[in-house]
Amino acid sequence: MPPRRPKQPTIGSFLFEYLHGRGARHAFGIPGDFALPTFWWLERSPIELITMTHEPAVGFAADGYARIRGLGLACVTYCVGGLNMLNSIAGAYAEKSPVVVVSGGPSATERQGDQLLHHKVKTFDTQRRIYEEVTCANTILLDPETAADEIIRVVDTVIAQRRPGYIEVPHNIVDAPIRPPRVKKPVPAVSDQESLAECLREATGFINQAKRPVILAGIELHRHKVTRLALDLAESFNIPMAADILSKSVIGETHPLYIGVYSGALSEPPCRDYVDQSDCVIMLGTFVTDMFLGVNTSRISRRLSILSTTERTRVGLHHYDGVAFADFLDGLRQAKIRRRPAFKNPNPAVDIKPLGASERNDPLESEDVFRLLAQHVDENTAVVCDAGDALFGAMSLRTAKRKEFIAGAYYLSMGFAVPTSIGVMAADPKKRVFTIVGDGAFQMTGMELSTAAKCKMAPIVLILNNDGYGTQRIILDGEFNEIHRWQYTRICDVLRAGRAMIVSTKGQLDDALTAAVGSEELSIIEVRLPRDSVSPALRRLGEELARLRGPHSEAEHPKPKRTPRSKKVRRRAQ
Amino acid sequence: MPPRRPKQPTIGSFLFEYLHGRGARHAFGIPGDFALPTFWWLERSPIELITMTHEPAVGFAADGYARIRGLGLACVTYCVGGLNMLNSIAGAYAEKSPVVVVSGGPSATERQGDQLLHHKVKTFDTQRRIYEEVTCANTILLDPETAADEIIRVVDTVIAQRRPGYIEVPHNIVDAPIRPPRVKKPVPAVSDQESLAECLREATGFINQAKRPVILAGIELHRHKVTRLALDLAESFNIPMAADILSKSVIGETHPLYIGVYSGALSEPPCRDYVDQSDCVIMLGTFVTDMFLGVNTSRISRRLSILSTTERTRVGLHHYDGVAFADFLDGLRQAKIRRRPAFKNPNPAVDIKPLGASERNDPLESEDVFRLLAQHVDENTAVVCDAGDALFGAMSLRTAKRKEFIAGAYYLSMGFAVPTSIGVMAADPKKRVFTIVGDGAFQMTGMELSTAAKCKMAPIVLILNNDGYGTQRIILDGEFNEIHRWQYTRICDVLRAGRAMIVSTKGQLDDALTAAVGSEELSIIEVRLPRDSVSPALRRLGEELARLRGPHSEAEHPKPKRTPRSKKVRRRAQ
Repeated sequence: MPPRRPKQPTIGSFLFEYLHGRGARHAFGIPGDFALPTFWWLERSPIELITMTHEPAVGFAADGYARIRGLGLACVTYCVGGLNMLNSIAGAYAEKSPVVVVSGGPSATERQGDQLLHHKVKTFDTQRRIYEEVTCANTILLDPETAADEIIRVVDTVIAQRRPGYIEVPHNIVDAPIRPPRVKKPVPAVSDQESLAECLREATGFINQAKRPVILAGIELHRHKVTRLALDLAESFNIPMAADILSKSVIGETHPLYIGVYSGALSEPPCRDYVDQSDCVIMLGTFVTDMFLGVNTSRISRRLSILSTTERTRVGLHHYDGVAFADFLDGLRQAKIRRRPAFKNPNPAVDIKPLGASERNDPLESEDVFRLLAQHVDENTAVVCDAGDALFGAMSLRTAKRKEFIAGAYYLSMGFAVPTSIGVMAADPKKRVFTIVGDGAFQMTGMELSTAAKCKMAPIVLILNNDGYGTQRIILDGEFNEIHRWQYTRICDVLRAGRAMIVSTKGQLDDALTAAVGSEELSIIEVRLPRDSVSPALRRLGEELARLRGPHSEAEHPKPKRTPRSKKVRRRAQ
Repeated sequence: MPPRRPKQPTIGSFLFEYLHGRGARHAFGIPGDFALPTFWWLERSPIELITMTHEPAVGFAADGYARIRGLGLACVTYCVGGLNMLNSIAGAYAEKSPVVVVSGGPSATERQGDQLLHHKVKTFDTQRRIYEEVTCANTILLDPETAADEIIRVVDTVIAQRRPGYIEVPHNIVDAPIRPPRVKKPVPAVSDQESLAECLREATGFINQAKRPVILAGIELHRHKVTRLALDLAESFNIPMAADILSKSVIGETHPLYIGVYSGALSEPPCRDYVDQSDCVIMLGTFVTDMFLGVNTSRISRRLSILSTTERTRVGLHHYDGVAFADFLDGLRQAKIRRRPAFKNPNPAVDIKPLGASERNDPLESEDVFRLLAQHVDENTAVVCDAGDALFGAMSLRTAKRKEFIAGAYYLSMGFAVPTSIGVMAADPKKRVFTIVGDGAFQMTGMELSTAAKCKMAPIVLILNNDGYGTQRIILDGEFNEIHRWQYTRICDVLRAGRAMIVSTKGQLDDALTAAVGSEELSIIEVRLPRDSVSPALRRLGEELARLRGPHSEAEHPKPKRTPRSKKVRRRAQ
């Protein structure tokens, strides 16, 4: 019945019109039979679909897009698609990235009884129940009467909470006419004025009494678009600021008040010392994670800190209910906080020394990568980092202009960077993207460069090849950290796109970066590093954890004798 | 404290000793920090670990291994590993493949309070709750006192139910001394003798009255190792047999009583007609899925059928409680069922005509692939098929000797075949494996051939390249069915292993298969097929569904005009 008059609004057309209206200009997806009618409507909507190769990548791309544009969209099929994407959406939940998952599904009729329909796992509700664990709102559009309301509820909750939501679309319902929405939009929450006043009074007094307050600028400032309020606060009262790994680059890194990325023992020492010795750490929009705390090596105490986020507000040991994040920031900015005298930045941005002629033939170490990369990064750049030392190394990357920095720095899923870069490039085609990824993580999702090639995108991919799971080697080594050695540069032949280089000296890397930036093609730079080369940040953390004697220290798990690779595997023909 | 005396049994050593004792000789996995101590114990156990590149593949490999050996083992880390593997384990649940998932996890201390530990999603229990939806038993080993009991309970339930189970291992607990198990093994369920007798009496009468009974041999015969009982039944009473897609090859396909693979309209017509017109369809261990029913084109009625599985027993419309699958089979074999007169097989195995010299230059069509493949398949072969036309085409593959046939023929997750083949080759190194996979599915997980290369395995991979999601084109076409064109043969360069060929005529394919079988290397054969080439089975299904006017017919979703590929994507530099 329906698309004979395609102008008549259906549930399919309404769904994508509404998502488009709320900011989704692109969708990432892979179709499947239960989802085909939904994809049919998507293709006729104003949203541009980017079909990818594998569902884990679909979720990451939508997450990357959401971090730039404020709303991401991932379209998949029932179970074989949705469950395959679960990990990336779990990461978006953990790090508050607003992604709407649209999944195909069986019809209401098919759900009657308990028939074994292909793609079904335990019950017809399995996928929705699973997604309940990684989303802030979810629905199955079984009833055309309420479909519009349900779509609006889930999408609006996603945007309000900056967390993923789930909409399951029975394959036969997209063609049904949409009914107008009936519910009114919820009124946004306002602060409890009495609590807000008391909280601001106490915070103001606390800050004014402190000898050296410091602001930690968290990722929620960026997610909720209130970074300016925090900057005003710092500038008005002359209070220094640090970021954390997840919020790196939320504050411009050459700001005179900016002292670096704080993450306990992972931090550069002057930044770490300043924060750990502060008598008033003002955490604004911060996720207080074990990564933020430098694998719990941080010395920030609750008593000597303030925490304000969308979920909680605390001044020292006093918790407050009903205090909205933006109201607290706004109130603090207008409070009677004394302006501090001139501040001597203990860890200022310094001009990066260009590569000297004498060091061009030096073999590359991990720390050189980011020093050299820094010279090629500017305000038109986005840096997307994978988990592991690609991330820790990037802590020292401090650049002249405000740029985008994207990393799964709390959930720490390997395989994040390449597919997330696809989303970042779609979200902002003007940005040149550097993708920094270890060899182990690249083997997980690196072939998603196929989608970059298909879409004529030109990321510059640095594969930090230290021949295995290097970050894990620091913790506990064994045969299990070995991976197969790929010829990464030959991927360009498989994908019929791009240019590839192998570099192992500082001069080669510098030249390769120059060439890549000058090219309009996708570039793969395989950076050959010694097996034991680690970033300064990871080295600092390793030393601190060795002092603290972690539970997996070498003393307890003695290093096994090196065995030849694949010792036990027999050849088939033997 | 612990491994100073590595002989002292710990939870880590007990876990893998127990799994080894129950049949797991290999494990498939990817480590991560929460799982490293568990991997340390795994490396010291008698189980051989195969480290793979990406978690979705880990689950598939363990599933493939379990289908051959009766128990598979997948080891991953917390959330970023486990959630990334969820889809493959969901498939193992749906198709009853006994896989034990061992995941690292946070310690009991870390779980206190609600701290934001990296890899955590909503709560510390998120991953276990999610796995509850796709497993038959699950546990978190938080208490050393009960760890042994819990390990035994989960592993034994997995083996009894042939479905996946989940064991989460807090990273610090593996080093703790194991306590002896305290519980007694559960007594296996026995049949209710009264129900069993009545059920057998009714079934015997039903079969004896029938004019043309037929046995459908289901996958549970293989999973529960009772195929022999069903064969005896057929042979004693001279009743013909069919298999279904999931159980294909459970019965030797040249058996004189064997009439082919039944799957409604997907079946070869003589097989379909025989089953649809039977007045007594005896389904033994069959999953009555929509795929078994040929996307619900089957005409098997409940009234004229018997169903016996591990979960239910039904004779016509009468359901029976408390009748064990093996008891029913055994009882039926000893029942007074009359032997039928000589049976004329309507769809016997025929000798496959070797390729004629005159047709060597004919362009390849989908149906040629399996005809030619059949000549290279023997009792030392396993065939692993991905979802889509790789599977439907294989329905016509009927070979001279009993061989292994493995497919995710009910859950139908694309990307199944390549990683599953790794598990099959580990489970039975003597078998030569043919991996049949479409181009779209290959792009999902095909790079897992890296693990085959690392382990010196030599699968023969046929990539059926019809330039996109071909099976979906039959249902509903659009730009979303287009994929990027890879040069698949160049993957050998990336992996530094194997040999690759491109074939587009019958002669080329035949030569390539001969060469591949003669080689001890991994082989990739890219089979170039016309975009619209489909297997006879899929064509039959398409015609039947067109008659029935499915909900997504072209009439409702008119074919969009072909648009140029990637029309809307802008070049970055423009």
